Amino acid sequence: MEEHPEKTTIVLFSGDLDKAIAAFIIANGAAAYDHEVTIFFTFWGLNTLRKDAPVRLKKGWLESLFAKMMPRGADKLGLSRMNFAGMGPQMIKHVMKKHRALSLPQLIELAREQGVKLVACTMTMDLLGLQKEELLDGIEYAGVAAYLGDAAEAKVNLFI
Amino acid sequence: MEEHPEKTTIVLFSGDLDKAIAAFIIANGAAAYDHEVTIFFTFWGLNTLRKDAPVRLKKGWLESLFAKMMPRGADKLGLSRMNFAGMGPQMIKHVMKKHRALSLPQLIELAREQGVKLVACTMTMDLLGLQKEELLDGIEYAGVAAYLGDAAEAKVNLFI
Amino acid sequence: MEEHPEKTTIVLFSGDLDKAIAAFIIANGAAAYDHEVTIFFTFWGLNTLRKDAPVRLKKGWLESLFAKMMPRGADKLGLSRMNFAGMGPQMIKHVMKKHRALSLPQLIELAREQGVKLVACTMTMDLLGLQKEELLDGIEYAGVAAYLGDAAEAKVNLFI
Repeated sequence: MEEHPEKTTIVLFSGDLDKAIAAFIIANGAAAYDHEVTIFFTFWGLNTLRKDAPVRLKKGWLESLFAKMMPRGADKLGLSRMNFAGMGPQMIKHVMKKHRALSLPQLIELAREQGVKLVACTMTMDLLGLQKEELLDGIEYAGVAAYLGDAAEAKVNLFI
Repeated sequence: MEEHPEKTTIVLFSGDLDKAIAAFIIANGAAAYDHEVTIFFTFWGLNTLRKDAPVRLKKGWLESLFAKMMPRGADKLGLSRMNFAGMGPQMIKHVMKKHRALSLPQLIELAREQGVKLVACTMTMDLLGLQKEELLDGIEYAGVAAYLGDAAEAKVNLFI
Repeated sequence: MEEHPEKTTIVLFSGDLDKAIAAFIIANGAAAYDHEVTIFFTFWGLNTLRKDAPVRLKKGWLESLFAKMMPRGADKLGLSRMNFAGMGPQMIKHVMKKHRALSLPQLIELAREQGVKLVACTMTMDLLGLQKEELLDGIEYAGVAAYLGDAAEAKVNLFI
């Protein structure tokens, strides 16, 4: 008799470093408890998935503007408070290192190793002009219907 | 044998355009899957429900001040980030139109057609000095007890 | 035959007065319905639990800086919007008093009387350099594993 694993879903809407860290700590914790975990990245949360290096793509001027103004990847995110023009994130990263806590890029790596499903919301990718080439390789792409399918079967559903 | 429909509840606390759009996209998606969906509007989220046109009402000075300073309706909300003194919302509305995505007022209309229950939190209406005459017609009014009654029966509960 | 009580969990990540009020209103409502309620305080939400009075502790310079810059307790939190350099919270407190709504410190007190479990996230306490002596007496301390254990058994799980 097979038992169905528990499921956990997180919508990561926010593009803040601190909220992304919280999302990945919860996701990794749930995966360690054998939950099937999905993080659904939408709106500013998509920035967490952007590649470090700029990717050359044909874009309209508004999409280029968005691309330029939004942080490029997990290492560039700001804090939801006490950001201080970028000093805040450095302070947080410093104390995280001091306490041997995993950095956000390491938390993302761990999540992938643990089989956490990272799903980019295609509708908001369109709106913000983000293309697959700009996002981390090996993630999935889906819309709100797929999210709801997962969420309706999950015990823990969070919007962050 | 009747099956009970799945339930989904969303607390819309935020008064940000982008978060309101996310809330209504999820709500409409869930309604399309035959979930019974309730959006419970509290604090700044109540501004989403305000009528476009000013409504003449007797109010104390603090309530008048709140009323004046808070955005009047779904079309006036700002963004949670990249707001740029109101330019950000115009940019988002522009790309949404370009991608034929529904605008927030259209998303609200669709939600109502699909039977999504829109509930204004009476307690925070009192705090912010908002009166029924200022909010969209045909919505419901309730307190935290009603929300919890719905949430305890729902599979998906989000706080946005 | 005993019935298991419903469970509700809230992650309070935010350090905003308005969000903390919303969290405690939901928590107290759920407790009034005999739910077993846990609020898990992480990141800026920990400031809600800080004692009013300064506590003398040996800290590194970065931890001292954090301690100095973060609000000391429920009565010092700012608003997520319309904060106006501290005038906003005064306005909200004024209307809450006028409407005989409980203040945040009173909501916290009520939650404790009703047996709501207040849990401080030890990992983020470390990061922000907060020590047990600085937080309210009689709360609990745990990590993400304990949170997930509760959340997996709860009907209502919110991230605020």
